[in-house]
This record gives sequence, C-alpha cells and structure tokens, in this order.
Amino acid sequence: MDERAERRRRLQDKMKAAGVDGCVITQNVDLYYLIGSMQTGYLFLPAEGEAVFFVRRSYTRACEEADVAVEELGSMRGFGARLAEALPGLFRRPDGGKAVLATEFDVLPVQQFQRLEGAVPGARWVDGSMLVRETRMIKSAAEIAAIREAARVIDIAYEAAIAALRPGMAEFELMAEVESVIRRNGHMGLMRVRGYNQEIITGMIGAGSAAAMPTYFDGPAGGQGLGPASPQSAGRRPIGTGEPVLIDIGCCIDGYVIDQTRTAVVGELPDDLRRAYDLSEAVLRATEANLKPGVICEDLYAAALDQVREAGLSDHFMGFGRDQVKFLGHGIGLEIDELPVLARGFRYPLEPGMVIAIEPKFTFPGRGVVGIENTYAITADGFEKLTVSREGIAAVPK
Amino acid sequence: MDERAERRRRLQDKMKAAGVDGCVITQNVDLYYLIGSMQTGYLFLPAEGEAVFFVRRSYTRACEEADVAVEELGSMRGFGARLAEALPGLFRRPDGGKAVLATEFDVLPVQQFQRLEGAVPGARWVDGSMLVRETRMIKSAAEIAAIREAARVIDIAYEAAIAALRPGMAEFELMAEVESVIRRNGHMGLMRVRGYNQEIITGMIGAGSAAAMPTYFDGPAGGQGLGPASPQSAGRRPIGTGEPVLIDIGCCIDGYVIDQTRTAVVGELPDDLRRAYDLSEAVLRATEANLKPGVICEDLYAAALDQVREAGLSDHFMGFGRDQVKFLGHGIGLEIDELPVLARGFRYPLEPGMVIAIEPKFTFPGRGVVGIENTYAITADGFEKLTVSREGIAAVPK
Repeated sequence: MDERAERRRRLQDKMKAAGVDGCVITQNVDLYYLIGSMQTGYLFLPAEGEAVFFVRRSYTRACEEADVAVEELGSMRGFGARLAEALPGLFRRPDGGKAVLATEFDVLPVQQFQRLEGAVPGARWVDGSMLVRETRMIKSAAEIAAIREAARVIDIAYEAAIAALRPGMAEFELMAEVESVIRRNGHMGLMRVRGYNQEIITGMIGAGSAAAMPTYFDGPAGGQGLGPASPQSAGRRPIGTGEPVLIDIGCCIDGYVIDQTRTAVVGELPDDLRRAYDLSEAVLRATEANLKPGVICEDLYAAALDQVREAGLSDHFMGFGRDQVKFLGHGIGLEIDELPVLARGFRYPLEPGMVIAIEPKFTFPGRGVVGIENTYAITADGFEKLTVSREGIAAVPK
Repeated sequence: MDERAERRRRLQDKMKAAGVDGCVITQNVDLYYLIGSMQTGYLFLPAEGEAVFFVRRSYTRACEEADVAVEELGSMRGFGARLAEALPGLFRRPDGGKAVLATEFDVLPVQQFQRLEGAVPGARWVDGSMLVRETRMIKSAAEIAAIREAARVIDIAYEAAIAALRPGMAEFELMAEVESVIRRNGHMGLMRVRGYNQEIITGMIGAGSAAAMPTYFDGPAGGQGLGPASPQSAGRRPIGTGEPVLIDIGCCIDGYVIDQTRTAVVGELPDDLRRAYDLSEAVLRATEANLKPGVICEDLYAAALDQVREAGLSDHFMGFGRDQVKFLGHGIGLEIDELPVLARGFRYPLEPGMVIAIEPKFTFPGRGVVGIENTYAITADGFEKLTVSREGIAAVPK
C-alpha cells in the first residue's frame, strides 16, 4: 500500500538525519502504522532499502495483513545472524564502527530489549521513540478520515448520554450507556495509550466532587473510579442536581481514537461554575484563532495560561493545586497520548496533518470539573474541527 | 492492612533468598498488590525494614490509598540520594560491593529504567520480575473471594449471551451484550494483561471460521476481530446455524479477573465437533482429578497431550498447526497471564492459593473452535471450582 510505504520512507529520512542505520520496531501500534499488521514480531527497517517483518505469531495472519516481506522469527539466537545476512553491509560499516540500531525505548520492556541486545551483538542501540512518534505526528488524509468517523460515533454516544442522564444514577451507569452505543457503532472495545502505567477505558464521566478527585492519570480530570484498583474515570457516586457532569469520552474505530469533553448538568450550574465553563470556551476560541501552521505549540499553552490568569482562575486550571497538569492539549491518533503536546518545552511549529485534542478545564475541589474538549486537524490555512458535538452546557431538566 | 504487609514480607523473604537488597516496584498492578495504591511512582522495599512509596502523581490520593509511608518523588536526580539517606547501610555494604536492586524488567520500559539507573548510580540492577510474580502466584482468601465474585458476574453475562444469541447477529453484537451486563455489575471496563503487546478486551466471542483464525494473542483461539487494527476477539461476521460459538469471556471486579469459556450453537453441532467438545470436557475432568497440592504443573500439560493424542485430535489441540499454543492453562488474578502456567518447563508443584484457568480447546480451520474453560483455586486437599456457569454445549433453537 502506497500510504504505508510513504510512512516508512518518512521514518527512513529521519533515521538518516539521526545517523541511525536501522530500526527494529516492536510495538503493536507502531507496527500497525508502518506495515498494516500488529502480529507479534520485529520489523526491521534499514535506513536504505526494504523492510522485513520477522514474525513470532501469527505468521499465517501476518502474511495476509502486512505489506512488507514476512519471515518467521524462529529463535532469537538466529535473529541477529539473519539480519546481518539479509542486509549485508550493515554490520560491516566502512568506518569500522558499530551499526546503530534504534528501537522504542519508551515502551519496550528491559527484558525484551536485553534479548534483542543479545541477539544482535554487533550493534549499538539508541532510543528510536522520537523518530517513530514524530513520524506518526503528521497524519495522512486517510488517518484524519478515520478520526472524523470516530468523532461521528462519539457524538451519537454523547447525545445518548444526555438523553439518559437522570439525577441519582451512578456515573458508571451513564458510562455503560455510552460504552454500549460506541461498541454497537464500531468501537473496538479498547482505547490505546502509550505511556507506561497509563490506562484509558472510554474516557471519564465524573460529577461533582468525584470528578474533582485527583489521580495518577495524566489529564486534568481524573475522577474517583470504582476503587483503588481502578482509581480513575466513572465511579459509583450518584449524580446530583446542580453539579457539573463532565462527559469526557472517546472511542476507537479502526484503530483511531477521538477525545471529546462536554459539560452537562441536571438543573442549573451555580454562577461561578457557569462562568468558569464560559472561560473554557473562551480559551478554546482564543486557541482556535492561533491554530494554524507555524504557530509554536508551547506558545498556545502560554497564551492560555495568560488568559486564565487574567480571569483569576489560574489555581483551578487543568486540575487544582499540586495536582494540576501542565498542558492544554495533546496529539491524538492511534494512541491518545501522541505528539505534539501543547505544553512548555514543545517547540514544534504546527503543521498540516497534526491532530490535537485541546481541553481547557477548571477543577473545583469538592464541587466538580467544568470544561470542553475538541479535537482538531491542522490544515494548510488553519484547522478543521473534527469534533461535531454541540457545544455549550447541556442542561437536563430536574 | 495486615494482608498487604504479609505480601511485602513474603516478597522480602524471596529477595533475601535471591541476594537482593531492595526492590523498586514501578508497575501499577504490582503497586496495587503490595500497597493498595496504583498512583504513579516508585515503591522502595528494602530486604529488611519498611517500604516507602515515592509518588509522582497523585500524592494526595496516594496518601489516602497506600498503607505504607508516602513521600513526594520530586526530581529523579534527588531520588537516588533520598533512597540512600532514607535507608542508611544499603549503599555502604560491608563487603564493599554494590547494592543489588531489583525491578520489573518484564514490564518496565528501557527509557524509564535508564532514568532509574541514572538516579541510583550506586546500585547493580537485576530482574525482579519473577520475585514479584511468584509472590503474587499464591492468592489469599480475600483475593480468591474477589475472583469468586468475578465468576458470579461472568455467569450472569453468560446466561445473558445465551438468551441473546440469534443466527445472523454479528459476533461483536453478542459481545456488546456481554459487556453491557458485566459493566452494570461492577466490571471496571478493562482487563489487565502483563505481556508486552498483549491486549484483552473482555475475552473473545467467535463463531465458525472466524473463531478459528489464528492471531498474535497468546491463547488457543484468537478470533477474527474487527480488522487488522484489532486482530482478535469478536468481529463483524454473522453467526451461523450449526457452527460452534465460542464464548470465552472475562471481567474485572475490584481488580481481579475471571476467565471462562463455554461452547454454544444455534441448532446442532456436527458429530465430529460435538465429540471434540466432549473430549475437552474429558480433558478437564482428567485434569481436575490431578488438581491437588504437589502435582507438577508441566505434568498436567503432558497428561492432557497424551489424552488428546490417544483420541487422535493432537493436530487440533489448542490451535491448529503452526499456530498452536503450548499450554493447557494459566494463572490468573490481577492480571490474566499470571503464574503458574500449565506448560512444559513450569516445574512448580501446585500449592494452596494458586488460581488457574484451564482451557482445553480444539480448533478446526474453516469450521470453528470448541472447548471449555474453568478457573480453579487450589486448596489443601484439592481444588475449588470458582467458575459457576453450567457446562455442556448450550444449544439454542434455530
């Protein structure tokens, strides 16, 4: 398939620029992105030339799915020898130095890496995470179309949630409604996240004090969850009247995820929370005004911080106190935590093909979280809003 | 809490036996097991003395959840120094050698491990995966009670699936039914698996040829799935009459998972598939007869292979041809892929407190998979069958 050949070519360009002779790609999502198959094995991609997918399991299925040459992996002992054989020149560099191989240090466990090192003793290994993640950062038209479809499905689920919302129902019951709708509309049953120890179910529905509970999850609103074994997302607390219900949900269609947040309430929100919600929309509008190629990611975050400071809500922005997170948005695609991040230190200029979820939110301990989150694709002259759900606070009668 | 203190004490005993001075526990599930909190951070457990949980996020919540001392992690640079300070003696060994620290090489990514190495330069690092996994292998009464509850919920879901089963419905529609039932009965929304790149949704419902498709998943029946981005479990193929419907489902209640398989059919199965199903029950009965303390895990697998060979179905056992898996069962608890494994090379004698899912299955390419799977706890004089669903083929009228 031409599109994936182009992805591999872009990765090869980055490898050459970084002085990397070859990549050994191990992670299921990276494999799917580069060759269309996530069977278990190692993809060897030299800086020049064709890739070979060495498959542990299932070889049968990999042959059907992958658009590169497929070989059975066999023993790890033989793997290095076969690399050298299949790719003459790589381990006999003219300068006498060791070949430089890259793999995904951000996800590959130590144990498996040590096996790779043992199998390919003639190599010097470096971290290839950023090469792969930066390649994946720029989406094709087909990828954006997949995220658009996920956005369409999550809108159906959002409307179903609003229709089902009743005071007294538990957060997890409302989430069950959402999950049922997305599953019947093509959701794969899971959403993928890259970060170690990070988990995502289908997002988070949280009301009142439960939504404002901090947790390990690297987002502005964690939620109480069902207990310490699942300390995030929807919990058992009944949804009350007059408290914000944060509906931060996603789904995964054909591998691509969407992330969307809306704020609902049974009855009416107190004035100060309604004003905070209005500020979240204002931050989103101000960010949209700068959402075009060339704008630097961290500048969008800095501008949002300024806007919130002027409104006097800095302490509540993106979490509260010591549990605040330090970003405004994140790349999204096959995983929920992709590049770029709208945060300090991210100097990427916006480029067409980036897809970013932007999520200004305000946390009020003991009272709840309000906010909004849309997902955008950067275009040649600005952006396309992929999220299609209606904005504004969704007020349900008592 | 006394129970978790006992778990830490058992791990400390193993550390001493292995010459390990301290463990740095990083993985969310291991953390939850040992201290009751899976906030993000590092648990330091010395071979002698009290544990300290150094927390990145959320400190607030970790203080509520964890039953050991909690400190803010702060910078990685300071982490090593604080370990040395908090635990004098560890980095000044009488023999002048380096302190030996263990962490979970089977799950910890290289990048994070390198940060740990950099932060604690005075240590020699070894793989602590097996120390932790062997500690977790023996379940307490409370853990078994949690799995029993998950078994109760999955039985409700199984009966709902049988009630909903109609010819022409897609596999994923039947799975959506199961997922809705378990979610409303306490399922956390995800099931945890330890292996790199392994994913589990809520198990697998597969009918006819789709069920028999091999895939990367480390189990006897992979399933077609919704596409190459999710190449396992339920797919879009309509369920036909007279073909086996494998209902291999699980759920996760308060962190603990159950794994159960039943075989259903709309109408009747062909005679040869029915006989293969009967053999799966016979293998289970024969295995149960040996399910008691002292029996060696790999011997149970070998006995099953013999039994299947005598019946002439070796080629179809636990997958077909090159896609067969080489085990009969697996430990289960907080994760679906725990110790012990009933497979060659696993010399563990059965012990009270082990919990094992045993799953004899037969794959017929192009036709389907039949089989059964129960989860058992080993007791002082035998076993308790935790699975409560009725056995036998569930035949639904055409």
